[in-house]
Amino acid sequence: MRIAMLSPLEMRVPPIGYGGTELVVSLLTEELVRRGHDVTLFASGDSVTNAKLVSVCPRFLRGSGRDAGILTMLSVVTCLEQADKFDIIHNHTCFEGMSTAGLVRTPMLTTLHGGLKGDWLLLFEHYKGWYNTISHSAKRLLPDKERFVGVIYNAIDVKSYPFRGDDREPYLLFLSRISPEKGPHLAIEVAKKVGRKLIIACNVHPVDEEYFQTMVMSGVDGNQIQYVGEADYYQKRKLMSEAYCLLAPITWDEPFGLFLAEAMACGLPVIVFNRGSAPEVVKHGETGFVVNTLDEMANAVELVPRISRRRCREWVEQHFDVPRMVDDYLRAYERVLSEAGVRREHETGVAVKELAKHTVDYSVDIEGLRTTVGSAN
Amino acid sequence: MRIAMLSPLEMRVPPIGYGGTELVVSLLTEELVRRGHDVTLFASGDSVTNAKLVSVCPRFLRGSGRDAGILTMLSVVTCLEQADKFDIIHNHTCFEGMSTAGLVRTPMLTTLHGGLKGDWLLLFEHYKGWYNTISHSAKRLLPDKERFVGVIYNAIDVKSYPFRGDDREPYLLFLSRISPEKGPHLAIEVAKKVGRKLIIACNVHPVDEEYFQTMVMSGVDGNQIQYVGEADYYQKRKLMSEAYCLLAPITWDEPFGLFLAEAMACGLPVIVFNRGSAPEVVKHGETGFVVNTLDEMANAVELVPRISRRRCREWVEQHFDVPRMVDDYLRAYERVLSEAGVRREHETGVAVKELAKHTVDYSVDIEGLRTTVGSAN
Repeated sequence: MRIAMLSPLEMRVPPIGYGGTELVVSLLTEELVRRGHDVTLFASGDSVTNAKLVSVCPRFLRGSGRDAGILTMLSVVTCLEQADKFDIIHNHTCFEGMSTAGLVRTPMLTTLHGGLKGDWLLLFEHYKGWYNTISHSAKRLLPDKERFVGVIYNAIDVKSYPFRGDDREPYLLFLSRISPEKGPHLAIEVAKKVGRKLIIACNVHPVDEEYFQTMVMSGVDGNQIQYVGEADYYQKRKLMSEAYCLLAPITWDEPFGLFLAEAMACGLPVIVFNRGSAPEVVKHGETGFVVNTLDEMANAVELVPRISRRRCREWVEQHFDVPRMVDDYLRAYERVLSEAGVRREHETGVAVKELAKHTVDYSVDIEGLRTTVGSAN
Repeated sequence: MRIAMLSPLEMRVPPIGYGGTELVVSLLTEELVRRGHDVTLFASGDSVTNAKLVSVCPRFLRGSGRDAGILTMLSVVTCLEQADKFDIIHNHTCFEGMSTAGLVRTPMLTTLHGGLKGDWLLLFEHYKGWYNTISHSAKRLLPDKERFVGVIYNAIDVKSYPFRGDDREPYLLFLSRISPEKGPHLAIEVAKKVGRKLIIACNVHPVDEEYFQTMVMSGVDGNQIQYVGEADYYQKRKLMSEAYCLLAPITWDEPFGLFLAEAMACGLPVIVFNRGSAPEVVKHGETGFVVNTLDEMANAVELVPRISRRRCREWVEQHFDVPRMVDDYLRAYERVLSEAGVRREHETGVAVKELAKHTVDYSVDIEGLRTTVGSAN
């Protein structure tokens, strides 16, 4: 299949440090190439890939002061101008791809990596292509719209994460990005409540600098509560296979918490607030705990020994590894091509076929999902 | 001719108060309709027009908190999705239109209303349509690029501006927008230097509020230096036909100062800094003075009696009235259609014709322009 893969340009593919979308784009792209597909990746010029790379900028944009809006649109338009070279365009950019999808004949699949609100919902309503979400939770937050091809969970390269059993340090870990939505200030509260050491490993966006200083650093004492900066590839794996458990007191409906899957892959149970996709990613009582309050989170810390670290690893292998994600996307591509073919025939009057009315949910095989959600409430 | 007119959505067409681009779009659109052309205006839903109006938002966006980037792109894409209904698309939006021009067969003419820098120049280089600037000065600031159809000066509806001769109040007038680039703080200095009353009539964007308080209001005493808020349609005309002269100590290369033409139409001589298009719009020594320093501006105030207020009016009638602008744009449309036709034949291999290599400068008939520029230096 001839696939155009539209990546954001904020970070290279694969990312250096923080960049969940670019990581998923990379894993998907490389596995598609490995399976023999003809993939053209539209991404920053410093990306590393076995696909054909097309770039409008030599380096990724985060921190560069360059205009991400203009450059991302130029990247998308560069793809669309040669759209007839592709069977399908897989868009990970949101705005730039969604707004222009109706201007070419090649069908577009957009993966909605983030939430949509305000005028983004208007953009979504006008969007002329197909879409998938990365969790059931993310789907529930959207208005109904045709051409939903299903929930396709993100994946990680599980084998690149070292597994470690119960031979661990006693500290709690907070590892993601410093921002109020990720809740590091709440992790500090929990650590103080249970009297355990907490290591915070995060990057800080300039926009969150004030929050970082007033709400996070004010609680860091360098002893019980430690901040160790942004964890790179190796540090992240070291921390995740060394810690006792991961605290994820998220305060927003995260569409998919990639870092939760990474932690579990290393055998690190996750205690997470019941927001967004959390009860889909973490199997309550088996790979961690999905809780509703700070007190519940503190209590759950003492229940971690009941969790099998091996089961955490297996859960991720079964549901969040790359081959499953790529299988799902290939089925989605086939479906889009099939429906787009029907649509074109319909438009040109050659034939009128009934469009499939129902969407396929590629992730319903996750056992006991709804029960898990239920028990977490 | 079937013309799609793409307006920004920040302000309705025609604008309430400040909105130079929307005013030009309105004048052009209404005159094209009056001449029998089939014009579809893509603008905010509260616009008032005799053209067909297509809107993605019921009201203009300034101050609404809505996402202008998304809505403007939706407006442009709504047009492009039905591009084959139009002979030409006239784009006044810059980013949204320029980035997507290559995705449809209908040729696009973009009027560059503002300056371009940084990544906007990259967007400009990628742009696949034709363009015009609104002054020679604006053209000189751009890199060379094919498909330049010439300089087409903006216009005002001259007959809507009342002319008044020498029966005037002795005050100086500053009337545009509060911002460092427009130089109201310098106008205050000049007024103090010459010991004359100054009336400042302006709107203030939130981004310029601090500048307004520290650099402008600090000099306003309510007596010699007065601030009267934003001037609406009627107040603007009253002030311009009552004042002694207009001070325009601009500190940037303004592509076209519509307010300078408005002032001269009312018989108000203009004293302007020699930046951007100023020496093209104001005829030095005939309709005002193009100066380089605050001292020169102060000296010029005493030379205003040498200027014929009638000549100011005539100058605007000759060069900046609507029929001339619409004639220019219709010639530009014809040229774009002709070149686009050649291009398509070339692309399809039906015929290979030589593209016109030279651009037509529609404004070279302005007498003594280069002499004016020279004498102002």
